[in-house]
Amino acid sequence: MLGYLYPLRTYLVVAGTIENPNPMTADWVVPLSFNPPMLGVAIGKTRHTRKLIEEQKDFVIAVPTVELLKDVWVAGTVSGAKERKADKMSVTFVESQKVKAPSIKECQANLECRVVNEVETGDHIFFVGEIVNVTHGDAFSDGKPDTRNYKFLMHAFTGSNFTYQSDEILKP
Amino acid sequence: MLGYLYPLRTYLVVAGTIENPNPMTADWVVPLSFNPPMLGVAIGKTRHTRKLIEEQKDFVIAVPTVELLKDVWVAGTVSGAKERKADKMSVTFVESQKVKAPSIKECQANLECRVVNEVETGDHIFFVGEIVNVTHGDAFSDGKPDTRNYKFLMHAFTGSNFTYQSDEILKP
Repeated sequence: MLGYLYPLRTYLVVAGTIENPNPMTADWVVPLSFNPPMLGVAIGKTRHTRKLIEEQKDFVIAVPTVELLKDVWVAGTVSGAKERKADKMSVTFVESQKVKAPSIKECQANLECRVVNEVETGDHIFFVGEIVNVTHGDAFSDGKPDTRNYKFLMHAFTGSNFTYQSDEILKP
Repeated sequence: MLGYLYPLRTYLVVAGTIENPNPMTADWVVPLSFNPPMLGVAIGKTRHTRKLIEEQKDFVIAVPTVELLKDVWVAGTVSGAKERKADKMSVTFVESQKVKAPSIKECQANLECRVVNEVETGDHIFFVGEIVNVTHGDAFSDGKPDTRNYKFLMHAFTGSNFTYQSDEILKP
């Protein structure tokens, strides 16, 4: 039934440390509060990422653009419990400023989050994070996305179908 | 800081009843579980919609396409506490099959939800809903969105800037 909410944006949720980064593709990411700034991400209960976030109580939401599609696919299909995903990806993990989980240099934004709540939602755990720091590239100015010049990655629907937004801006 | 997650899909969350429908524009909607099917929506604490959902314990997430942009704008800017929004919109409210909150005929999908949890997240309340029924139009077949033939509405960033997805499908 969840296909009716698609297409949805695709992000990377980065758990672990700079020594052992573990990125995972995540469509199920949502803003939750302006003040304090908060977001949420739902992670499958059986995922390695769930275990890592529960232990360390922080994570990073990294914002890829279309150029990182192959890396996003690896992060979404390889199991971090069995293989070191970072070695199979082209991206560079860099230290975050306020959390242990690393950021991704090639992503256009990295939202550093501290876990403030965990809620069981069916077959997933919903992690509520307070955003304690953001770093970003030129796809954003004044905190707003540059939708004319950057292709923000979307999952068209589950499986290997992706798309991105049009550059057309509509005014009501 | 939440602008770094945009652009995001825009939906309508419908509270109230067929006699007194109250639609609100909502970008902060997220899938939460495959089995049972669940989704979440974050609603500002001061919103009339929050009160309605807390009382009735159900809501509908309706999926508009670009043709409904003007209605989406009304639903997002008029206060349901002060005015009857439904009268200012062109859409038709119809009875849902399994919840009291109505569906919207012109929307391409209506996901009927029963509230199973409410979580305080900063200045919003995050309602966790189990999806108990879905009705849909021809923008979806086999539960998948038809991204080539339908323009699924997106909020480019906060304010009056909207966009929609490209019709290009990328394969990793």
